[in-house]
Amino acid sequence: MVSFRSIAWKNETLVLLDQRQLPHQTVYLEYHAPVSVAEAIRAMVVRGAPAIGVTAAFGMVLAARQSQATQVDTLLTDLQTAADLLMQARPTAVNLAWAVKRMLAMASAPANSVEGLRLRLVDEAQAMFAEDVQINRQLGLNAQPLIPDRAQVIHHCNTGALATVDYGTALGVIRIAHEQGKQIHAFLDETRPRLQGASLSAYELKAYGIPHQVIVDGASGYVMKTQKIDCCLVGCDRVSANGDVANKIGTYNLAIVAKAHNVPFYVACPLSTLDRSLSSGDAIKIEERAPEEITHIQGQPITPEGTQVLNPAFDVTPSEYITAIITEKGIAYPPYTETLAALFDA
Amino acid sequence: MVSFRSIAWKNETLVLLDQRQLPHQTVYLEYHAPVSVAEAIRAMVVRGAPAIGVTAAFGMVLAARQSQATQVDTLLTDLQTAADLLMQARPTAVNLAWAVKRMLAMASAPANSVEGLRLRLVDEAQAMFAEDVQINRQLGLNAQPLIPDRAQVIHHCNTGALATVDYGTALGVIRIAHEQGKQIHAFLDETRPRLQGASLSAYELKAYGIPHQVIVDGASGYVMKTQKIDCCLVGCDRVSANGDVANKIGTYNLAIVAKAHNVPFYVACPLSTLDRSLSSGDAIKIEERAPEEITHIQGQPITPEGTQVLNPAFDVTPSEYITAIITEKGIAYPPYTETLAALFDA
Repeated sequence: MVSFRSIAWKNETLVLLDQRQLPHQTVYLEYHAPVSVAEAIRAMVVRGAPAIGVTAAFGMVLAARQSQATQVDTLLTDLQTAADLLMQARPTAVNLAWAVKRMLAMASAPANSVEGLRLRLVDEAQAMFAEDVQINRQLGLNAQPLIPDRAQVIHHCNTGALATVDYGTALGVIRIAHEQGKQIHAFLDETRPRLQGASLSAYELKAYGIPHQVIVDGASGYVMKTQKIDCCLVGCDRVSANGDVANKIGTYNLAIVAKAHNVPFYVACPLSTLDRSLSSGDAIKIEERAPEEITHIQGQPITPEGTQVLNPAFDVTPSEYITAIITEKGIAYPPYTETLAALFDA
Repeated sequence: MVSFRSIAWKNETLVLLDQRQLPHQTVYLEYHAPVSVAEAIRAMVVRGAPAIGVTAAFGMVLAARQSQATQVDTLLTDLQTAADLLMQARPTAVNLAWAVKRMLAMASAPANSVEGLRLRLVDEAQAMFAEDVQINRQLGLNAQPLIPDRAQVIHHCNTGALATVDYGTALGVIRIAHEQGKQIHAFLDETRPRLQGASLSAYELKAYGIPHQVIVDGASGYVMKTQKIDCCLVGCDRVSANGDVANKIGTYNLAIVAKAHNVPFYVACPLSTLDRSLSSGDAIKIEERAPEEITHIQGQPITPEGTQVLNPAFDVTPSEYITAIITEKGIAYPPYTETLAALFDA
């Protein structure tokens, strides 16, 4: 165990580590209402597809607690309002909607009392919290046959304990390799604009004692050409049925560059990231975020005043660039339409 | 003409615009000695391959002025010392060595007096200054058949008037297209770590009134996939005889991504950037710069304390990724070994 926790549920309160202040300050913020939880997700106090899913589940618990309802039907109406609010906080990651819908489904089962329903929602959110750790750990174990005993990997964004409840997806693969005694060295894409690689992933790997070097996002081709790189490892926010992957902006460039160097490109994610309703990644909605993420760094302007930007938070990597998708139920290889469905239904 | 000048020679003094303070402050620094000129090049007060060439030429003029020599032979010895110092300031761009060697060659021609030699060196540096403007303008004109009347382009780093004496190379192509009335829109890679795109290129295009949007370096694939992009335009620091190109880190990634989208990838440079002594780019020495360029932005830390980085300033793009190389004598297409040699000897 390390000394930080992205998400905790304590004394009927949701506690989030404010990731915007890392790696410089470790500040925990408390949440008592779904509206402030939605705002925390939007403002990226918490980020990472699995982490925002579990956070939203506790947002639903807070909605149930905050509701003045004395009848189950009224409580369900209040929960639906909170669900809509939470699901709108960020559009790309499917885990958010998945978690909220799971909470709604649990709430819709027959209930004898409002208080019973409230307790049931707490139990469900805590189950999701525990499952997330277990799923990520299993996913990391499943990946190990792909990771040699001496490995150099390139990692994009942050996909670690901070992006999940614990362990993480792609960074969890690296962490478990290290725990198993493998000599692993990670090149961390700094991941502009929000620098999750330079700040959050470097913070985590420092805590775990895993050797790493931060590189600028444009340097991955140089690194693949001048070093022996065993694979690229990324997480993801939504996978369509055919294996196209929406993930942090820059993932698509990294995948193209990896293919040009014959470097395997692995995506690590829980199966809850699969959106079977989408036949391809073309339909995935890409969030555009505020220009200040590019024009300012830590509050300081870096561009001339009035500079226009284009700031997509994610991109879509077509499945032909993806060597394998690593899940808690096993590893899927192309053709993904069949192999992902088989894992999902297993 | 715009209101800034990267380099000026005034009252026997070299004046450089301090590009480290752009776009926020326009500060001109004065130089009287070759040692401080070398330091200005190293610290990137001035940057861009053509600009540092002309700067170094004036560094040689200052060396001649500073020398206490009363005999031509002694002056030549002092000039050789200054030449070694200046050429070591940055290792990758060939224009620096090219300019210094041109000044040394001029100094080595028979001279009647020390003062005559000093005057000859001033004339030569001023000739190089004027030639640079002319060469860049011609290069930009030569490129126009490649640029449609309505064009969207992606540009990396800064290659404009700030990187040269005026006009610039790749950014000069954009500027001349705009001057000719073409509707051109530039997506500017911000170009980490030093953000020359976000700061310097945005500063220039704002001054010229050319529409542009800054993007993070990882977003170029997203932009090529979601927009009609006519070409990528970059400058370069050294071209080997076979057309491999050393340029700002991230150029290689951009070229790979462009090829994957069938987007033409054009390199714009004066022929002085060609290093015929190198048969391929493998032999080009890549400068690694200080870790603080990655770990800090504008003096503020972004990584945890003690974070290790890998910070190559340049990468090498193999010629197979390059659609054409645009020079002041015309456009070279593959096979570059023949076409570049033909232009050089023309």
